[in-house]
Amino acid sequence: MIETIISSKTKTVIIGPERPFTIIGERINPTGRKALAREMAADNYDRVVSDALAQVAAGAHMLDVNAGIPLADEPAIMAKAIKLVQSTVDVPISIDSSVVAALESGLEAYEGKALVNSVTGEDERLEAVLPLIKKYDAAVIAITNDETGISQDPDVRFAVAQKIIRRAQDYGISPADVVIDPLVMPVGAVNTAGRQVFQLLRRIQTELGANTTCGASNVSFGLPARMPLNATFIAMAIANGLTSAIVNPLHAEIKQTILAADVMMGHDENCMAWIKANRKEPEGVAGKPRERRRRRRERS
Amino acid sequence: MIETIISSKTKTVIIGPERPFTIIGERINPTGRKALAREMAADNYDRVVSDALAQVAAGAHMLDVNAGIPLADEPAIMAKAIKLVQSTVDVPISIDSSVVAALESGLEAYEGKALVNSVTGEDERLEAVLPLIKKYDAAVIAITNDETGISQDPDVRFAVAQKIIRRAQDYGISPADVVIDPLVMPVGAVNTAGRQVFQLLRRIQTELGANTTCGASNVSFGLPARMPLNATFIAMAIANGLTSAIVNPLHAEIKQTILAADVMMGHDENCMAWIKANRKEPEGVAGKPRERRRRRRERS
Repeated sequence: MIETIISSKTKTVIIGPERPFTIIGERINPTGRKALAREMAADNYDRVVSDALAQVAAGAHMLDVNAGIPLADEPAIMAKAIKLVQSTVDVPISIDSSVVAALESGLEAYEGKALVNSVTGEDERLEAVLPLIKKYDAAVIAITNDETGISQDPDVRFAVAQKIIRRAQDYGISPADVVIDPLVMPVGAVNTAGRQVFQLLRRIQTELGANTTCGASNVSFGLPARMPLNATFIAMAIANGLTSAIVNPLHAEIKQTILAADVMMGHDENCMAWIKANRKEPEGVAGKPRERRRRRRERS
Repeated sequence: MIETIISSKTKTVIIGPERPFTIIGERINPTGRKALAREMAADNYDRVVSDALAQVAAGAHMLDVNAGIPLADEPAIMAKAIKLVQSTVDVPISIDSSVVAALESGLEAYEGKALVNSVTGEDERLEAVLPLIKKYDAAVIAITNDETGISQDPDVRFAVAQKIIRRAQDYGISPADVVIDPLVMPVGAVNTAGRQVFQLLRRIQTELGANTTCGASNVSFGLPARMPLNATFIAMAIANGLTSAIVNPLHAEIKQTILAADVMMGHDENCMAWIKANRKEPEGVAGKPRERRRRRRERS
C-alpha cells in the first residue's frame, strides 16, 4: 500500500489511495496576491494567520506555505511563516519554494515531518533538494518537468517521474515519500490534457507505486465557468487515483466535490463526513446557507 | 472501436468511448409521477409532448419513453407515446418497458433504429426480448441481474453482463448493440458501491467491448444533498468509461457536470459546447443566472 505520512507536532496526515483525499490549502502564497506579499515583506503576518485558520476551518488537511516575494529575504520569511502557522493550526505543512535556501530554512524551522514543494527532474535541482529531504526525513512533491521544460507528451512526463523516483531511491528516500505532480495543462489549449493526466495518474500509482498531487485550476485556464470545470476535473482525477491536491478549500464547489468523491471511493465511512457537511442544507443547494451565514458575519 | 448507433427518422446518435457522452432524458416515465400516469391513461399526452420538448431543449440526445401504468393497455399507450414523441422531436428513443408486448408495440410504431430498455440476464426474458431486437434491428440495454436477483458481488454482475452479450451473439446481435447497465447500488447502504461500478465500467469496456449506461440517481438514495453526489458520481463514472446515462437534463448541475466531463475527456472539440453553454455567465457561478430566469418564467 502506498502511504505518504506527513506530520505536524501533534497531527499525522496519511496520503494514500485507501485514505480520504488530502486537501492541501493553497492560500498562503504571495504569488499574485499583492497585499499579502506587501504585508509579509513588511513583517506583518496577520493575513497568514487568518488564511491558516480559515482554510483549516474549511477542511484543509494540510497547508501549503510559500514565501516567494521578489527581493525579499525568502529564507527568513519562510522560517517565520512556518513557525507562525505551526503555532496557529496543528495541520502539517507543505513547504513551498523554488529557492533551495528557503526550503532548508523552512525545514529547519518546522516541527514534524514536512512535505517539501518541490523538486523537478532537473539534475541540479535533484542534487540540491534530495539531500535535504533525506537529512530532514521529509517527503517531497516531484514536478514532472526537467531541463527541457514541460513536455506535451505524457510519456515523457512519466519518464521524468520515474527518473525522480529512482534518484530519490539513490538517496535512500522511499517512493512513498515522493508525491508526483503529473502537471495539468489547460484543456482549452490542449484538448487531450484531461485524459493525459488521468492516464498518468493510473500509471504513477500502478507502475511507480507513488502518490500524486496537482494544482487543479490550471486545467480550466482561459475558459468560462472555471469552478465547475475544476471540480469535475478533480472528481475524474480522483476516480483515476489522484490522492491529494493543492486547492482552495474555501471554494464550496471544490470542497463539496472532494467530499462527494470520498463517498464514491468508499473513503467516507458510513458517509459520516458527507452527512455532517450537508446536514442542515436542503437538497441540491449545499454550501449556500453557510455562505449566507459567512456574508452576514462579514457585514456585522 | 465500440459504437452503438441509434437513430430516429432523421437523426443518428452514436454512443461510444470516443464520442461526447450520451444523455438519455428520463422524464417521460409515469412511474412515481401520478399526474402523468393519470393523463396518459386518459389519452392525454400534453405533458409527454412538453417533457419531450423541454428535455431536448436542455440537451438530451435521446429520450427514454416508458408507459408503465398499472391496469392500463401498455402496448397501446406505448405505441401512441412513441408516435407522438417522434412527431414532436427528432432525437432517437429508448423504448422502456418490463412488458414484452409493450416493447414490441413500441418497436412496431418506431421509425429508425431504437434502443430497447431493457433485457436482463433471466433466460425467459432473454428468449423473449432478443428475438425482437434482432427482428427490428434495434440495440438493447442489458441490466446485470438474473433469476437470482441483483448480486452485491460485482463479479457476479460482470458474469451476467457476459452471459447477455454471448446470448445476444447467438441471436446475431453484435456486442456493440448491447449497452450494459452495471446497476448502481446506494452508496449509503453499500460503502463500496461507487468503486464497484467504476471497476465494472472498465471491465465491460475492455473485456466485453460494450457500451454502458446507468440510472445514476440511485447512488445517493437516502443521503442529503443528492444532486452534487449524483453529479460527482457521473463525472467519476465517465472517467472510468461510462458512455451514456438515463438522467434528467433539466437538472442544471447534472447537465453542467456532463458537459465539463466531455471537456475533460477531450470530447468537446475546442471546448465549443462548454463555451456556448457558459458564454454569458460570470466565472464560477454557472447555471445560476439561467435558474433565476427559469424561476422568473415560472412565476409569470
